[in-house]
Amino acid sequence: MTIDFPTWMADTQAQAETAVERYLPTTSTGQERLHEAMTYVSVGGGKRFRPLLVAAAARLGAADAEALSQAMAAIEYVHVYSLVHDDMPEMDNDSLRRGKPTCHVAYDQATALLVGDALQTLAFDVLSRPVNLPAAQQLQRVQVLARASGSEGMAGGQGIDLANVGQDLSLTQLQHMHGLKTGALIRAAVALGGLSCSDVSDALLRDLDVYADKLGLAFQVIDDVLDCEQDTATLGKTAGKDEEANKPTYVKLLGLDGARAQAIRLADEAKAAVAAYGDAAAALLGLADYVIKRNH
Amino acid sequence: MTIDFPTWMADTQAQAETAVERYLPTTSTGQERLHEAMTYVSVGGGKRFRPLLVAAAARLGAADAEALSQAMAAIEYVHVYSLVHDDMPEMDNDSLRRGKPTCHVAYDQATALLVGDALQTLAFDVLSRPVNLPAAQQLQRVQVLARASGSEGMAGGQGIDLANVGQDLSLTQLQHMHGLKTGALIRAAVALGGLSCSDVSDALLRDLDVYADKLGLAFQVIDDVLDCEQDTATLGKTAGKDEEANKPTYVKLLGLDGARAQAIRLADEAKAAVAAYGDAAAALLGLADYVIKRNH
Repeated sequence: MTIDFPTWMADTQAQAETAVERYLPTTSTGQERLHEAMTYVSVGGGKRFRPLLVAAAARLGAADAEALSQAMAAIEYVHVYSLVHDDMPEMDNDSLRRGKPTCHVAYDQATALLVGDALQTLAFDVLSRPVNLPAAQQLQRVQVLARASGSEGMAGGQGIDLANVGQDLSLTQLQHMHGLKTGALIRAAVALGGLSCSDVSDALLRDLDVYADKLGLAFQVIDDVLDCEQDTATLGKTAGKDEEANKPTYVKLLGLDGARAQAIRLADEAKAAVAAYGDAAAALLGLADYVIKRNH
Repeated sequence: MTIDFPTWMADTQAQAETAVERYLPTTSTGQERLHEAMTYVSVGGGKRFRPLLVAAAARLGAADAEALSQAMAAIEYVHVYSLVHDDMPEMDNDSLRRGKPTCHVAYDQATALLVGDALQTLAFDVLSRPVNLPAAQQLQRVQVLARASGSEGMAGGQGIDLANVGQDLSLTQLQHMHGLKTGALIRAAVALGGLSCSDVSDALLRDLDVYADKLGLAFQVIDDVLDCEQDTATLGKTAGKDEEANKPTYVKLLGLDGARAQAIRLADEAKAAVAAYGDAAAALLGLADYVIKRNH
């Protein structure tokens, strides 16, 4: 079960790409433009970090291939929907995402609104399709994704962010906001991996959740570090937006070196939570290192 | 099982109100404004037509009270989310809804965007919570709602509408668009009623779907008639918007009298589809009459 991490990552990214393409609507009866825009924002871009987490977590159990594919696609649809809506003029007003024009720029605002809406729906559609898992476990996957992405998860984090533009947050408040805005979906991805296995146990889900919680925090700290360091060309999105809008960041609070050190500590704690699973956890460990080392 | 329809309707609207309030988030950790706005748009407004359909359909079987409450709330959250997003400047740019300022006017565009997103998520959250129905049947409810509201349902209808502003549609194209934009969710409401019963059968779901299909068309025809006839004060939303934007309507194609006659024919066909259920179908028959007679 030992893996060469770069090979595993490349293979799994390709698997994520296939999964994301697979459930997108292919036939239209007048909504060609909507479907084209859904494909535009979903296909061929991004690190597929959340699907990678799903797949890495699923290595700790006996994963059903189809269930895994559903979960990888569903979590990415929710992530992409949130990017499409966050980039809109009323939110972050970004014109560049994953190195290409954002949806409302390439299409129009009304289409971007609909694309986000329809991608969210597609996530729940895909997770409720027939698959070789107990129905109760499938339902649990729907519940996990819904709780993580709603007003007490990702959307709630966005709400807190909106309410605090131009204001100073404490580190605790900042961690809470990011825990919802970014962390909740990362935890859902890891849980969905476990819940795509026929032999999932409560103990496994608990260990995975500790891993995901720490990793989510590390991820957001590094995001802040990157946003501060990188220029627009390397990042593939407009850099420095957070600072412009006077949004709180970890770098502001801890400094660049302090933020990096904090991220490394968190990643180590994440790895410790699944170390007992040995070789099966290799992909999860590799992803924790990847989070620390990534430069975009 | 015979009912006094006006009493049933008032009681069931109160029941819908309770259901809608019940699952809204009550505790906030910084996202107070988002939660307040979700309540603002959801509570105390509207005819609750879709929850009424859920409850009316559930009278044809042995409904579980909690499952019924979930379904009534979930379908209304999806409906309300679609109204909030449709009213936004990039879509219909409406400032009045259910007699009060629309969400982006009362709050702001970013909040309206998030409110719609979070209400959609809440619908799937609620439908995936534990309840006394077989898990496979619960999963079917999630699937029904997702299919009806996504890019091959409600959002798809919106996409077709957007793509045809300023263009002439044939009656067939118009029916198709409304079948997705409005009809799909009406069909989902009726199906969710059936699927909230422990004794649901395929035959029941088929009969309910014929009813819902016809009723959905009647509903949209009457919507066009009302939009043409009524003034802003009576309607509680900005009247004449469709004509302004040169959107196709049934009235344009059939004339006022022709459209009314068409709606009555469709409602009669809806009633015929469930007539065999006798007294148990009284609420469904009453709702078909209500659709024809409503004046807002």
